[in-house]
Amino acid sequence: MKFDLLQTDSQSQARAGVVHTDHGAIETPIFMPVGTVGTVKGVHQRELEQEVNPDIILANTYHLYLRPGIDVLEKAGGLHKFMNWDRPILTDSGGYQVYSLSANRKIKEEGVKFKSHIDGSYHFFTPERAMDIQRSIGADIIMAFDECTPYPCEYNYARRSMHMTHRWLKRCIEHFNNTPNKYGFNQTLFPIIQGSTYKDLREQSAEFIANCDMPANAIGGLSVGEPAEEMYAMTDVVTAVLPKDKPRYLMGVGTPINLLENVALGVDMFDCVMPTRNGRNGMIFTAHGTMNMKNKKWETDFSPLDPADYAWVDTAYSKAYVRHLFTVNEMLGRQICTIHNLSFYLWLMREARKHILAGDFRTWKDKMVKQMDNRL
Amino acid sequence: MKFDLLQTDSQSQARAGVVHTDHGAIETPIFMPVGTVGTVKGVHQRELEQEVNPDIILANTYHLYLRPGIDVLEKAGGLHKFMNWDRPILTDSGGYQVYSLSANRKIKEEGVKFKSHIDGSYHFFTPERAMDIQRSIGADIIMAFDECTPYPCEYNYARRSMHMTHRWLKRCIEHFNNTPNKYGFNQTLFPIIQGSTYKDLREQSAEFIANCDMPANAIGGLSVGEPAEEMYAMTDVVTAVLPKDKPRYLMGVGTPINLLENVALGVDMFDCVMPTRNGRNGMIFTAHGTMNMKNKKWETDFSPLDPADYAWVDTAYSKAYVRHLFTVNEMLGRQICTIHNLSFYLWLMREARKHILAGDFRTWKDKMVKQMDNRL
Ligand SMILES: [Zn+2]
Ligand SMILES: [Zn+2]
Repeated sequence: MKFDLLQTDSQSQARAGVVHTDHGAIETPIFMPVGTVGTVKGVHQRELEQEVNPDIILANTYHLYLRPGIDVLEKAGGLHKFMNWDRPILTDSGGYQVYSLSANRKIKEEGVKFKSHIDGSYHFFTPERAMDIQRSIGADIIMAFDECTPYPCEYNYARRSMHMTHRWLKRCIEHFNNTPNKYGFNQTLFPIIQGSTYKDLREQSAEFIANCDMPANAIGGLSVGEPAEEMYAMTDVVTAVLPKDKPRYLMGVGTPINLLENVALGVDMFDCVMPTRNGRNGMIFTAHGTMNMKNKKWETDFSPLDPADYAWVDTAYSKAYVRHLFTVNEMLGRQICTIHNLSFYLWLMREARKHILAGDFRTWKDKMVKQMDNRL
Repeated sequence: MKFDLLQTDSQSQARAGVVHTDHGAIETPIFMPVGTVGTVKGVHQRELEQEVNPDIILANTYHLYLRPGIDVLEKAGGLHKFMNWDRPILTDSGGYQVYSLSANRKIKEEGVKFKSHIDGSYHFFTPERAMDIQRSIGADIIMAFDECTPYPCEYNYARRSMHMTHRWLKRCIEHFNNTPNKYGFNQTLFPIIQGSTYKDLREQSAEFIANCDMPANAIGGLSVGEPAEEMYAMTDVVTAVLPKDKPRYLMGVGTPINLLENVALGVDMFDCVMPTRNGRNGMIFTAHGTMNMKNKKWETDFSPLDPADYAWVDTAYSKAYVRHLFTVNEMLGRQICTIHNLSFYLWLMREARKHILAGDFRTWKDKMVKQMDNRL
């Protein structure tokens, strides 16, 4: 993996760059649609590629590990072939989902024992196992196995957890370096900064992670319920420490406004279930605010879903029609809003990139943040 | 509406023709995908038009009447505009759904009172009202309001019901003739033959309907649970009576084999929820039999869903991937199998038409019926 930093904004920390992988280039800033179990819910791979057009997508190790399972993925020749997606894929480490099992998992220094939410069977993830599994899934970008602390998190717990995450990272790196690429193309490991919402811990963690000198760095444990201001403050703390010549990935973030604010703080990569999950629930994001498509106010509004036309669905369907689809609980409504939201998110990142390169990002960002903070 | 009969098979009653409507030509034999509430479940209008490519689709009056309601559809300028579908649409009369409410409806000579399955509100459908509603929905083809008897049906009930359907038809025709086309394009009324599984009643009803001299004729009350042989026998009885220069529409039929056998008996038009409903349930139809995509036998079968490639989904996704999508209950699985099944049904009708025109329909049909009668 190689990162070309093309431009840094003069009035913010925003950056435009290109990440090169064996499955193609990723223009940053980028939003990665979430394809949990090997499918971006409700979106055909062809639509994803041709319409939404992201340079990379994300998949979840925990879910893929349980189903279809690593054996099937290995026999398929990896997730790219299994799901028929030829661009880069990033997998999380499985840690986040495992921790959210709360009562059904036990964390020890060695790793985490957990009970499957599918069949109740017991499994054990270690840093080493998380590397093996992600190698076998066949992601281009593999995430370190970390503990993602909840919010709020007591200081001492956050500190101890952070150090365990650091020790686990060393094990991840060692195991990763001792194992070959699984399917002929290059796989890259991203380390993850933790430290909850504590400035000193975040600084310590960022320094530790930066010193590992991996090809990119990730920020975890945010967007877990803390106020946006705390999230921005933590991002600001760590991007000040992280090397400028490597991509920064802020995990699990966020709303369109969150994205722009974090781009301004120097973040290059994002992922979040919000555009897909909210879309399935009838909520769409637009350049002028959010819209609840279930609302009766759209009942006879036959104007296009979004005249800005981020994707063909925006002009092919009216607000009234989409509202009807949600009223009668038809899956097409979920499909339409998912494609709209993802297309909007990707448009927003491409637009941000253009403005960074053009030198007027800050002005554009401030305008967009203001006009998106609205309910239509 | 105008029907050109191009060819009748010499070794069967199969016919190839063209139905001309103001929304375009319909090449027959044709299968009409069911878009119950203004959407073919899980299929974008663009995919429907460009991939499945049916010359006409069907929508359900009962469902559209309840939601979005006639007011909304009138304000939209009719269903074509509301759902963004520019080819012909046929609507049923609402009778079939109303009768299936069983405990919640009461049939009288005047019409049928029923209770909405959505909010329990009471409604009254009459032959006249069914015409008005379908005019307002804006279908190109409007169905007469009839009583569809269940199977089995006691002879005297079937006879009395048939005569009421005939009296209702007279009221439908009169009201239809006294009302204008709603949206500038021509709307055509199809009368419906009833008579349950009784040969003499079916003959009587076919004669009555034929004498109404409408532009096309429909066969109702079949595919309601009777054995296929009884269905074919009834189709045979009525097509012998019906004029050859008008299209025949067999309502609610059926499996691919049912379609071919009824084409051989002189039927031109079909509709059925089977390809869409079964598709959503993981069952696909192929030229070599049916496949249950939930079956574990596909777990590591990475070959294309269907190498025959009726639609892009057939080669874009593997059997193992589609099986995985059903295992994890992902909507993409339902989308894929729906598109496959509809594309296969439409392919089958186009192929039948080719063979009718080429003069070897009977041989081809016998071969197809044999090879499709199989579970893969
Ligand atoms: Zn440490
Ligand atoms: Zn009669």
